[in-house]
Amino acid sequence: MNDTKDNTERCPIFSRYVRAMLCGSGQVMFQGNIWTGLLFLCGIFWGAYETNTPLVAWGAIVGLAVSTLTGYLLNLPVEEGEEGLWGFNGILVGCAFPSFLGSDPLMWVALVFCSMMTVWVRAGFNNVMSPWKINSLTFPFVILSWIFLLAAKMLQGISPVHEVQPDLAEQVSVSLDLRMGAVITYWLKGIAQVFLIDSWVTGLFFLAALCVSSRRVALWAIVGSVLSFMVALLYKGSTSNIAAGLFSFSPVLTAIALGATFYRPGWRTSVWTLTGIVATVFVQAAMDALMKPFGLPSFTAPFCLTTWLFLLPLLKFGQDDPDHSHWHKHVD
Amino acid sequence: MNDTKDNTERCPIFSRYVRAMLCGSGQVMFQGNIWTGLLFLCGIFWGAYETNTPLVAWGAIVGLAVSTLTGYLLNLPVEEGEEGLWGFNGILVGCAFPSFLGSDPLMWVALVFCSMMTVWVRAGFNNVMSPWKINSLTFPFVILSWIFLLAAKMLQGISPVHEVQPDLAEQVSVSLDLRMGAVITYWLKGIAQVFLIDSWVTGLFFLAALCVSSRRVALWAIVGSVLSFMVALLYKGSTSNIAAGLFSFSPVLTAIALGATFYRPGWRTSVWTLTGIVATVFVQAAMDALMKPFGLPSFTAPFCLTTWLFLLPLLKFGQDDPDHSHWHKHVD
Amino acid sequence: MNDTKDNTERCPIFSRYVRAMLCGSGQVMFQGNIWTGLLFLCGIFWGAYETNTPLVAWGAIVGLAVSTLTGYLLNLPVEEGEEGLWGFNGILVGCAFPSFLGSDPLMWVALVFCSMMTVWVRAGFNNVMSPWKINSLTFPFVILSWIFLLAAKMLQGISPVHEVQPDLAEQVSVSLDLRMGAVITYWLKGIAQVFLIDSWVTGLFFLAALCVSSRRVALWAIVGSVLSFMVALLYKGSTSNIAAGLFSFSPVLTAIALGATFYRPGWRTSVWTLTGIVATVFVQAAMDALMKPFGLPSFTAPFCLTTWLFLLPLLKFGQDDPDHSHWHKHVD
Repeated sequence: MNDTKDNTERCPIFSRYVRAMLCGSGQVMFQGNIWTGLLFLCGIFWGAYETNTPLVAWGAIVGLAVSTLTGYLLNLPVEEGEEGLWGFNGILVGCAFPSFLGSDPLMWVALVFCSMMTVWVRAGFNNVMSPWKINSLTFPFVILSWIFLLAAKMLQGISPVHEVQPDLAEQVSVSLDLRMGAVITYWLKGIAQVFLIDSWVTGLFFLAALCVSSRRVALWAIVGSVLSFMVALLYKGSTSNIAAGLFSFSPVLTAIALGATFYRPGWRTSVWTLTGIVATVFVQAAMDALMKPFGLPSFTAPFCLTTWLFLLPLLKFGQDDPDHSHWHKHVD
Repeated sequence: MNDTKDNTERCPIFSRYVRAMLCGSGQVMFQGNIWTGLLFLCGIFWGAYETNTPLVAWGAIVGLAVSTLTGYLLNLPVEEGEEGLWGFNGILVGCAFPSFLGSDPLMWVALVFCSMMTVWVRAGFNNVMSPWKINSLTFPFVILSWIFLLAAKMLQGISPVHEVQPDLAEQVSVSLDLRMGAVITYWLKGIAQVFLIDSWVTGLFFLAALCVSSRRVALWAIVGSVLSFMVALLYKGSTSNIAAGLFSFSPVLTAIALGATFYRPGWRTSVWTLTGIVATVFVQAAMDALMKPFGLPSFTAPFCLTTWLFLLPLLKFGQDDPDHSHWHKHVD
Repeated sequence: MNDTKDNTERCPIFSRYVRAMLCGSGQVMFQGNIWTGLLFLCGIFWGAYETNTPLVAWGAIVGLAVSTLTGYLLNLPVEEGEEGLWGFNGILVGCAFPSFLGSDPLMWVALVFCSMMTVWVRAGFNNVMSPWKINSLTFPFVILSWIFLLAAKMLQGISPVHEVQPDLAEQVSVSLDLRMGAVITYWLKGIAQVFLIDSWVTGLFFLAALCVSSRRVALWAIVGSVLSFMVALLYKGSTSNIAAGLFSFSPVLTAIALGATFYRPGWRTSVWTLTGIVATVFVQAAMDALMKPFGLPSFTAPFCLTTWLFLLPLLKFGQDDPDHSHWHKHVD
């Protein structure tokens, strides 16, 4: 991150723009690191082509490019943008639209428009939330994608694709393979699903990407996926959802947010993070049930809600080590 | 507005009360102007009698009178009330109740009670929202009308009238007449529907009323209706809804709010307003889909939500003309 | 309350913990009084055994014990906890879970987890709401119970019990007995249902408990139950719900909150409280209709929402008696 900032002074505009995009890809998991962002994109492309949905990858590129550009056009603070904070909602919009809507020129226009909106909606939500020392996380992506998916039911110019949706909403009984090899693919898919990709290889890419930025973060991603898998298994969630990692992508994000972003490391904050991971599984199940009548996926809303519930009490865990003054290190 | 304030010192109480009511009618479209308010009422009466729903007009009078009176009873700041800020939610409640509920003494009692509530709910919501430099717009009307329409499903003393509701919720295929004459009636209906009136003549009354107050506002109302019509047509919204102006009344309000109320005129803010109009169409479609399972109309909620999304980022467009200090001119 | 605080300095830890629990029971109706709390528990046990749902009473004990303990574990301000502010959401979770979910070890684990969460969710919500001089009331209980009941639809490890739910959601036509004796049992059930208990004897226990703390509070509880009964009868709410007190438990809480907790006594605030009671009935009906498609009870949400709507305007009723400086006496 530091070298990114130093170099950008001398970089030509296009290079700065590409760096801001790559950081934006990385910021989906809180890593403003160009190599992390690049490996995320590689994982997305691999997974999109593996699952025969290549447009998801190209949508990701478009959403990322458009949202990052929008930040420059709106004259928002450049340092935020170049940390990747303009692009991370846009890339998720870019993954979601081709997953849930039919490919049509009008869908792509909507994708571009929605990606642009994420930038100022994020700025607005952060203004609202800053008094409480939280930020909007990926909620601009969530709320705007819900709006456009709902609108697609009333506007025949963009059509919901029903083949994709059941994955997230339905209770198909698949028998889980609980041998170690299979279970590891479920865990990796839990990480891959952060970008709505159903591929364990993509999960490997993402883990590698996190390791480049921080081993601590990669470890919490694994813990989030494993623990949420176990809770979902214990409480008998839909086996097809468990196998596809759909109970785990939000807990993975909660794990990184609480365990390696907003709190200093320590045993107390680790217990707090584990608690947050467990809570996210229940919130995930609840939101899936809530959204089902509307035919909407819950996206990363369970992560956002749970992380807010665990940040808002402003609990102080570091009172025995008062030399570390920054309790929150990542509230933008 | 200025002359209103000067005269009120010498006016007898009843005259001040009537002026506050007329301004309240005008404030539905942000115009604290008694002549605008009067012409709005004329348009409402014309349209209500034309569409054989005269009670809508009388409901409007009752809602307006009761809510304005409530402001005096609660000892709220008089200058707000005499700008019309007590009455604009009440008049909308008064239009909505007879449109969606059967006429029954108990319905009228509920209408009176709900109109009264809008006054303190507005005061409360404005207290909540003021730190972010937004206000509650017509949301007190929206949320309280939803509450009473929902309650009507559980309380047999007030009964939902199903003949009216489908207009707003259903996807009837009417073939649109795209000749200029017909299209103009659709555009005018888009303006008339701000008060839930399905009549192009009423739209003419409303346009005239806006011209009396400000040509700029009237122009933005037209732009809002025309642009939202085109977006809804392009994205293939329900033709019956398009023809009845139901995709346009919220964008009309967004256009007036962003283009002629909360921002200084200029090309940047005009682009911003056009963007807001387009966004309102998608939010409208989304809310119609969201509310459908509950049998509720979305009222002006799409306008409120979109306007907030476009105000909250606190974008500054006037940095090249620093002599105009008031960026927001209408945050009460 | 004063003697509670004085004694606790000398009390052994366990005694302080039990006192905090008893106050927590009492705080469900805003009374930080150990005898009120004890009589509430007696009423719960009586009603739970009378209606053959003994686990509701034991759930209450577990939820109360766990949430109070959690406050100590999180090092939250002890004075809050010993006024009972840690336990009142937990005891309600403990009543709700065995009422709506099948008894299973996994349900009890979820009950414990959810009771714990109420403590920090309350702290978080209060942080959010304090700028507007309101607090979260019983909303942490409401939102978390909704989350777990929704999750139970997706997680087969905890199963919704459908036999109980219809009570709150369905429109069974029972013919009301309007003789004085029967009507009094309806009124008492309205008070008992605050803890989800359908027993008029429990209502008597609760009234006695309130009298111990304050006759004014007991009086407002009765007024809340009687007035809401009359409004629900006038507007023809479901007779089975009226008979079971389900239109009254939220108004009872609104009555205590507005009439005897957040405002100073006086005729103006009494009128305000009566208005709030009437409003709560409509909000109750609306939320029942809103929640029905999701199979969720509205719990005490109507009380929370209405009380907020009546507190947020920050109306000042005491301007003719300026020696009483504390307008809000109970905003923690």
